[in-house]
Amino acid sequence: MKFTCPRETFLQGLQIVQRAVPGKTTLPILSGILLETAQDRLRLVATDLELGIECFIPVQVGEAGSTVLEARFLTDIVRKLPELAIDFRVDAARGQVEIRSGTARYTLHAMAPADFPTLPETDGEKMWDVDQRTLRRMIRETSFAVAADETRPFLTGVLWEVTGEQVRLVATDTSRLALAEVTSANQVQQAQVIIPTKCLAELSRLLEPGGETPVRVTLSGNHVVFSLPEIRFISRLIEGQFPSYQQVIPRSFKTKVELDREAFLGAAERAALLARDGPSIVKANIGGESVGLSAYVPEVGQSEERLSATITGDDCEIAFNTRFLIDVLRVLDSERVTVELTGRHSPGVIRPLDGDGGQYVYVVMPVMLR
Amino acid sequence: MKFTCPRETFLQGLQIVQRAVPGKTTLPILSGILLETAQDRLRLVATDLELGIECFIPVQVGEAGSTVLEARFLTDIVRKLPELAIDFRVDAARGQVEIRSGTARYTLHAMAPADFPTLPETDGEKMWDVDQRTLRRMIRETSFAVAADETRPFLTGVLWEVTGEQVRLVATDTSRLALAEVTSANQVQQAQVIIPTKCLAELSRLLEPGGETPVRVTLSGNHVVFSLPEIRFISRLIEGQFPSYQQVIPRSFKTKVELDREAFLGAAERAALLARDGPSIVKANIGGESVGLSAYVPEVGQSEERLSATITGDDCEIAFNTRFLIDVLRVLDSERVTVELTGRHSPGVIRPLDGDGGQYVYVVMPVMLR
Repeated sequence: MKFTCPRETFLQGLQIVQRAVPGKTTLPILSGILLETAQDRLRLVATDLELGIECFIPVQVGEAGSTVLEARFLTDIVRKLPELAIDFRVDAARGQVEIRSGTARYTLHAMAPADFPTLPETDGEKMWDVDQRTLRRMIRETSFAVAADETRPFLTGVLWEVTGEQVRLVATDTSRLALAEVTSANQVQQAQVIIPTKCLAELSRLLEPGGETPVRVTLSGNHVVFSLPEIRFISRLIEGQFPSYQQVIPRSFKTKVELDREAFLGAAERAALLARDGPSIVKANIGGESVGLSAYVPEVGQSEERLSATITGDDCEIAFNTRFLIDVLRVLDSERVTVELTGRHSPGVIRPLDGDGGQYVYVVMPVMLR
Repeated sequence: MKFTCPRETFLQGLQIVQRAVPGKTTLPILSGILLETAQDRLRLVATDLELGIECFIPVQVGEAGSTVLEARFLTDIVRKLPELAIDFRVDAARGQVEIRSGTARYTLHAMAPADFPTLPETDGEKMWDVDQRTLRRMIRETSFAVAADETRPFLTGVLWEVTGEQVRLVATDTSRLALAEVTSANQVQQAQVIIPTKCLAELSRLLEPGGETPVRVTLSGNHVVFSLPEIRFISRLIEGQFPSYQQVIPRSFKTKVELDREAFLGAAERAALLARDGPSIVKANIGGESVGLSAYVPEVGQSEERLSATITGDDCEIAFNTRFLIDVLRVLDSERVTVELTGRHSPGVIRPLDGDGGQYVYVVMPVMLR
């Protein structure tokens, strides 16, 4: 195997697939990146057996072949090379790879490409095209709400649901639920699958707000594939039944508050500081033309702040885990938000007032008032 | 105690003194910052009992007094407050502090100012004025070379030596030695003291390359004081006898190599990658019009690179701990450096060729050739 390519191209490809390399693994081959020639391109692959990423880069192929090199190490070396073309050459007999760039030459031990796991075959039973900017926003607005602990694996992923013309992402840890929905005329095939959050998070970093090519999403058996030009993310789906989330979204409210998102976020962040090491609880006192936010931690002290707001309906006093408010206020980009409440023991609903398109709803359980 | 001041001013003061707050401490009062009014200013103090920093900021004093608040917490709160004036008020009877900014109000438990350690009295037996830019450069060029382990405390600090018109900073861990020297007509008092590296490192962050006011350096008993307008660093000196470093600086050489600093640094960094987890050794092969740098790690592979250089004297082969080369090549800012050698078992000497003024010399022991 021999090829030549610009350092920058090679580095970009390595950085993309490296996202699938597991941080720790008992299988040494998974710490590597598979490099193989494919006509006039180089195919790079990495996988942690749950998520696989493959990427194709244009190279000048001198001799077809393949090899596996340790991912972090290879990326570090290529990153440090001068801005020149790289000559890459495998000596299969000696299990070595030679990398040349300018006057620098590395000779590295390689792993056997035959040991590298094959990515699953996917034939594409169902398929959708989604705008990059929209998908990126929907991932950001939902994935933070998944469950962190693994006791119920189906809550650690994000639901991908297509019904009629609606594409919906839903995440919940049972204390709060985030739902982002977009209407798209080309969505005709129904689906309801749970996608691992890591796959969406890593994919999201590659999506460009101005990216013109849509992402192709394909379901195939128990896998989902996200395809961009020259890049494919292939992830196992999470098994299990996602909760019937529609039931938990309140259909009515008694109090509606409209307020500035950034002012609300700032006040929540300040209230959270008080708690320092433990979870923070913030009490909201809603009435007149303002919302009073207060927090109290016995050993530390207390905080109080008033935010001007437009309030309709009943006065209300309710307390939330401050983290749950901060999380959603940070990912939204609307100038104002509404909060709908139905008394101190019922879930609150937060919605952006003037968002970036699409529907969004966030449901959050209150905590008992102290 | 009552005062009012702009958030930004208060935050700057807190961030300066916070550098002296110990990361961990068994004395809770040391995790705090002392705030006390001093005429129309606020004095802020923090100390870890080795280094103390005090800073004065202009405030509108309503009522004289003092208090102590937990440093990290206070800084976080002030950082998060909106860009407004802060009203600060101590309720000494209840041991509480009230901070108001806009519609936000915090009530915090305070610590007793009487428990806060007093900074040592310093009367200034010897005194020098040093240009900020020069002191910053000298600290950067030497402090990295101190010993990391505490078995010989006098090697963990930087020697501050004044003889005749020379001010000299020297640091060594016995494997390498860095010396930066500047000539200054106003230096008349002799001195030889060892300053803790932490003090110099934290001071250095405050020094501005274009800072016009010189730093006043004062020795007083077993303390050194660095004074900038409204800011004082007071540090204990390290006891012990610094090694007679002049003996280890070679007076002659047999081989002299002149080469581009950044090319040399890049090649050393690339060679170091190979070692990954352990210490890296790089072998230099000097002869003709180039320096060959090579590294070899049995389980990983090898690297080789040639750098063009101007060489006078004998050909030579010598090996160094790559880290020791990288450290010095990173802190120098000259375009080219010289390396003077006297065979494979004698220390090498690295000097900047066209530096920023002042004298600089770096002596580094070779390692046995493999």
